[in-house]
Amino acid sequence: MSSSISTADLKKITGAIVAPLGFSTNGINSGIKKRKADLSLILSDSDCVAAGVFTRSSVKAAPVVYDIGLLRDGNAKIRAVVVNSGNANACTGAPGLENAEKMAAMTANALNIAKDSVLVASTGVIGVQLNIEKIETGIEKLAPTLGRGQEHAGAAAEGIITTDTFIKGVAYEIELGGKAVRIGAIAKGSGMIHPNMGTMLGFITTDCAITQSLLQKALLETTETTYNMISVDGDTSTNDMVVVLANGKAGNTLIESENKDSGDYQKFKYALEEVNKYLAKQIVLDGEGATKFLEVNITGAKSADDAKKMAKTIISSNLVKTAFFGEDANWGRIIASMGRSGAEFNAENVKMEFVSDDKLVTTMENGTPIDFDNDYAHELLKNKFITINVALKDGEAKSTAWGCDLSYEYVRINGEYRT
Amino acid sequence: MSSSISTADLKKITGAIVAPLGFSTNGINSGIKKRKADLSLILSDSDCVAAGVFTRSSVKAAPVVYDIGLLRDGNAKIRAVVVNSGNANACTGAPGLENAEKMAAMTANALNIAKDSVLVASTGVIGVQLNIEKIETGIEKLAPTLGRGQEHAGAAAEGIITTDTFIKGVAYEIELGGKAVRIGAIAKGSGMIHPNMGTMLGFITTDCAITQSLLQKALLETTETTYNMISVDGDTSTNDMVVVLANGKAGNTLIESENKDSGDYQKFKYALEEVNKYLAKQIVLDGEGATKFLEVNITGAKSADDAKKMAKTIISSNLVKTAFFGEDANWGRIIASMGRSGAEFNAENVKMEFVSDDKLVTTMENGTPIDFDNDYAHELLKNKFITINVALKDGEAKSTAWGCDLSYEYVRINGEYRT
Repeated sequence: MSSSISTADLKKITGAIVAPLGFSTNGINSGIKKRKADLSLILSDSDCVAAGVFTRSSVKAAPVVYDIGLLRDGNAKIRAVVVNSGNANACTGAPGLENAEKMAAMTANALNIAKDSVLVASTGVIGVQLNIEKIETGIEKLAPTLGRGQEHAGAAAEGIITTDTFIKGVAYEIELGGKAVRIGAIAKGSGMIHPNMGTMLGFITTDCAITQSLLQKALLETTETTYNMISVDGDTSTNDMVVVLANGKAGNTLIESENKDSGDYQKFKYALEEVNKYLAKQIVLDGEGATKFLEVNITGAKSADDAKKMAKTIISSNLVKTAFFGEDANWGRIIASMGRSGAEFNAENVKMEFVSDDKLVTTMENGTPIDFDNDYAHELLKNKFITINVALKDGEAKSTAWGCDLSYEYVRINGEYRT
Repeated sequence: MSSSISTADLKKITGAIVAPLGFSTNGINSGIKKRKADLSLILSDSDCVAAGVFTRSSVKAAPVVYDIGLLRDGNAKIRAVVVNSGNANACTGAPGLENAEKMAAMTANALNIAKDSVLVASTGVIGVQLNIEKIETGIEKLAPTLGRGQEHAGAAAEGIITTDTFIKGVAYEIELGGKAVRIGAIAKGSGMIHPNMGTMLGFITTDCAITQSLLQKALLETTETTYNMISVDGDTSTNDMVVVLANGKAGNTLIESENKDSGDYQKFKYALEEVNKYLAKQIVLDGEGATKFLEVNITGAKSADDAKKMAKTIISSNLVKTAFFGEDANWGRIIASMGRSGAEFNAENVKMEFVSDDKLVTTMENGTPIDFDNDYAHELLKNKFITINVALKDGEAKSTAWGCDLSYEYVRINGEYRT
């Protein structure tokens, strides 16, 4: 079938959000943070259809409220995204909403585009009013500097992060009907990460020609299996959002149906999922204080929902996380967290193994402990990348989640973050 | 109304679980742990009606499965409880269930009572088979030593703990129809504490005359507002249980209706709730690595369920917990966790304050940040006992939850627990 696509069909390319045709970007310091970049702009030469997923938290930051309003009817023609870090503009009441709107207006003014073609995002400390003067000066300074170089993409990625220790970006190219189509993205981690909708912030650009409704569908579905399957600390942010802008410059036949013979929608969605998965894993890898990268695979579950509940509860458990920090094969905490996950499963059929590089330890089979070599297991757990496979016999459903350990460093970072 | 009762009607007395008439106890080292007491027995001179609440985890430890079976029909006449620490007898398959049953049989044999009058409990490492020979030798050694002294109660409390840094026990006396009635209890903390039913382990004795069904009702209802409102680390154990034994030796008129004019049931339930609240707070105070004791009060919520969701989500948030460890008035994390709690509330009406001793800081009013003195707030947060008051205007419901901070020490303890 023509819609079948695999990693082999994806070409990793440079440029992140400016890899797709027609996009330019940059990031600078506006004075909200002391020295580091704290303000980024993404601009498309022409109108984009845009899709977004936003935090499910009932406390939504001002820019989230603003963007949801802008994208609500699906007809918005988006040209730009303006993002600041260092201040979340969340829990800031009416003045906060005004400031979000002002950021859009200032950006529109500086770029000479319509105000309602600008999306706004913020991340940082909650409950402090934005210094809108600094933002205004920053936008005016930043607008004339946008470009398509690797250095522009890097600076933009820098401007959206907070406690992250590295910038996060990726771009892939696929072929649709003989035309090269590019998807690029940048994202931020790295605390308050337990997305229930989007990650903290993710910005995706593509030159694919696709309708708004299919773009929204593809984003929603791939978010479920990527950002929504990671956890750093169990805390969902007030500012989570992922938006994707598509300007159609690749010249591919417009994707307007899911079921076309060409399989273009499935191919595009696959590539988008890979972009989102890449960023989701980068966010986990840069989890606050993380020393381990954990992947949990649940197979043989009764339903997809059961599988997901188990995978996410394991990856979110403080006791599981501290055990991996301690490089201790304490699999009992894993089965205990499955037990409290609310998922239905037959504990008598559980098989569990730890895998890393060429090492494998089976800790449980048929729901009964296996006598394994603790020294060998400890050697395995010294590795940074560890996979936990849990095989059930309750059905065919499966789920994968990603997370990190819980270290002294996490406590230090979050005990000191604001002061 | 005669059923009104307040703290003034409760007399705190010594003796913990042997304060009520007719109970004896002791604890010893059986060799499961290296040196510390790891085996305890509680015996009533005569038959007790018994009530229990057990973990809602779908992975239930062998003793939990055994006890649920014993108490299922409500007709059990209980004489004794045998408890070991150091090994949870959880995820141990069929041999684990056999061992739980053997513990009951060995205890019955040593005390010359019926096998089905013995409840069994275990706590400790998951997934390792019990050394039943050590348990047997221990029970035979322990049975003849039971007594009613303060030292016996202390040793029994010692024998049920794991990483706890102090033993937990309490006893209250109330008057029912002119008769003194006593309720005593011991409990363990201090990790894998996020009870969804009982705490890790709680054992309550009383000489009150009460029917089994009312005893069960009182236990269930008071568990909801006490143990189920605390969290140390968000992990619900496979071994949670609270059982209460009532032998009727106080000679009060049998409590057999909720609505008697005497108000005896309400009085008894009030005292039981105070016992449970005392222990729940002791468990939090001894939370692994805890340096702060946090109380969260939600008032003015739309429904009791909304209030509870908010209180528990705040108290369970890693970001809130690390902020208090860092003595940082980072109230934004509190409102963020309310937002993701799933509770319905109007964010525009939130008032939030931190209280400790004679200090008070208001951080938010009408959903908008208040400009407070950060140095003063920092002084307040240096205290060990801190109350967070969140007042809403959505209704009349309220809820209180208790928790602790998340410290380096928590990470150390749980990175090293098993190895």
